[in-house]
Amino acid sequence: MGSGGPEDWAIHCPLPIADRTTVQLAHGGGGRLMRQLIEGLFVRAFGGHGEGLEAGLHDAAVLEAGSVRLAFTTDSFVVSPLFFPGGDIGRLAVFGTVNDLAMAGARPVWLSAAFILEEGLPMETLQRVVASMRQAVEEARVQIVTGDTKVVDRGKGDGLYINTAGVGLVPADLRIGPRQVRPGDAILVSGDLGRHGIAVMSVREGIRLEGALATDCAPLAGLVAALVEAGCELHCLRDLTRGGLAAALNEIAAEADVGIQLDEASIPVAEPVAGACELLGLDPLYVANEGRLVAFVPAEAADAALQVLRRHPAAPHPAVIGAVSDEHPGIVELYNKLGGSRTVDLPAGEPLPRIC
Amino acid sequence: MGSGGPEDWAIHCPLPIADRTTVQLAHGGGGRLMRQLIEGLFVRAFGGHGEGLEAGLHDAAVLEAGSVRLAFTTDSFVVSPLFFPGGDIGRLAVFGTVNDLAMAGARPVWLSAAFILEEGLPMETLQRVVASMRQAVEEARVQIVTGDTKVVDRGKGDGLYINTAGVGLVPADLRIGPRQVRPGDAILVSGDLGRHGIAVMSVREGIRLEGALATDCAPLAGLVAALVEAGCELHCLRDLTRGGLAAALNEIAAEADVGIQLDEASIPVAEPVAGACELLGLDPLYVANEGRLVAFVPAEAADAALQVLRRHPAAPHPAVIGAVSDEHPGIVELYNKLGGSRTVDLPAGEPLPRIC
Repeated sequence: MGSGGPEDWAIHCPLPIADRTTVQLAHGGGGRLMRQLIEGLFVRAFGGHGEGLEAGLHDAAVLEAGSVRLAFTTDSFVVSPLFFPGGDIGRLAVFGTVNDLAMAGARPVWLSAAFILEEGLPMETLQRVVASMRQAVEEARVQIVTGDTKVVDRGKGDGLYINTAGVGLVPADLRIGPRQVRPGDAILVSGDLGRHGIAVMSVREGIRLEGALATDCAPLAGLVAALVEAGCELHCLRDLTRGGLAAALNEIAAEADVGIQLDEASIPVAEPVAGACELLGLDPLYVANEGRLVAFVPAEAADAALQVLRRHPAAPHPAVIGAVSDEHPGIVELYNKLGGSRTVDLPAGEPLPRIC
Repeated sequence: MGSGGPEDWAIHCPLPIADRTTVQLAHGGGGRLMRQLIEGLFVRAFGGHGEGLEAGLHDAAVLEAGSVRLAFTTDSFVVSPLFFPGGDIGRLAVFGTVNDLAMAGARPVWLSAAFILEEGLPMETLQRVVASMRQAVEEARVQIVTGDTKVVDRGKGDGLYINTAGVGLVPADLRIGPRQVRPGDAILVSGDLGRHGIAVMSVREGIRLEGALATDCAPLAGLVAALVEAGCELHCLRDLTRGGLAAALNEIAAEADVGIQLDEASIPVAEPVAGACELLGLDPLYVANEGRLVAFVPAEAADAALQVLRRHPAAPHPAVIGAVSDEHPGIVELYNKLGGSRTVDLPAGEPLPRIC
């Protein structure tokens, strides 16, 4: 072993260099490794066919079927544990896909539900999850119209995994996406951040939190519809799941080739979430949500959008948190009260594995 | 423990009574237990909304979006091992969903691909599977337009699982499904049976088969299009996956409320498959295929359909194998050369777990 060579450095570096020969948890974490995997492997293999995979990378792909515009999306859910304060894998699976469709401006209509069950799963557990999904589809006003069931041997799963895919209808005149983002746009979040990640972690790690902290898991299609109906011009929407606000904004900044400046004091984080994050050494900007969105709107539309959010039950504590500029393209900066700033990077690793 | 009571009987019965409190491998096997789970739990929870789940139970749901008719389907793939003679999990995942769409008479257009990766999976394995999927989407002339990646911890998966959902376009005038089946209909298969199941088993169990036996895994949309273009009236199509021909015909007989009579001598089974089935104690009628369909057509259209199949490369050894009657509704009967008959039941258990 030489001294000062890359191998030597790798051994002493507190952040181990990614082992690129095997899959790691971070490849599913919503951060940099996941992006490398998606862009380096999946987009390269499946993209480049015109409408291609790129558009559907994050939320939903928008497709033209004759005179009809469809949104199409998929998500698998592997959250551990299956039940957590305020929700479970079933609600997550329904609302996760509903929200991906809504972020493309679509009205979610049809869902598929595919179950990978582990041999030995108590039937009662499956029944609870299915009952919860039924309630969730009623809340979100969608239908599960097709499904699949597979069973894997004991020790080859973890109770159950669910995949939902979804199809929605996109209004003809709606164009929403990172490429519509413009310098000067205002950036809003629909509510306080980090509840889902902390709720799941509290059960998984047996941490007793002060106050009743539940996941924010909720359908966001009604919220988007309210914004559209109020005539708010929407440039880009993104729900804040794995990797939290930080991952979403970094991806949008990169795709739109713009800079993003955030005002730290205006970003809503509830007290119990902030406390738990401090305890766990987490940054709430990186913690997953399952019922929060970020919206990019023209500066002059920000007030109207905020008013719509304030009146909507799915948007607790909405706020304008920052703005888009043409400086430092691809970079997300966070300004504190004293005017100091730091860069909010795309997360590298995986602070909270199997959060959704 | 009393004598003669149900508990006593359960202990001595060579076929153990289903343990209904936990999930078993047979719940994913394409047979009776899977049907009970789907009908007793999933359809009860998610069905009954008009177009509902019932129509999409087997293959694809057909949905009306304005003037456009869509087919929508989903399947997860958990085959073990990942690679087998003539195919791999990636080809299976693409063609499986393409075929489900085709069975609804749809032209498959868009696919989603969602990966559940196990931590530690060699990246080279994933690359091989993705490359194979890329080739498969080119062969089937579809696009993967949206995707998802999740990673589970070591020991909570089995390398990788793939879910594909698919959306296709259904011609306005096409009505294909079990409810279109009529007494007198002829029943055709597109090729010889059982290759996929035996190919996977041969690798899994380390059995050395005589001759080169590969999976029949292939896209069937071109075959269906050829039948439609030739003007063949199609009442019902079904691809023969888990549970084989026996499961497909039992489901159709039950849903259409008709009887099915098969002529054993006319059912094509290749010599190496027949030999392997004898060795393994399997009935080829129950063994999975991944590139074979059964078609129900009016008796007078049978010859024309058979001619179309004979000319198509995806239909090796097509045959008329039986007919539909109004006698013994819900029952599938197999007649041998001597005129004797036996009932072909829906498989109860799971002869070949994790075959797709």
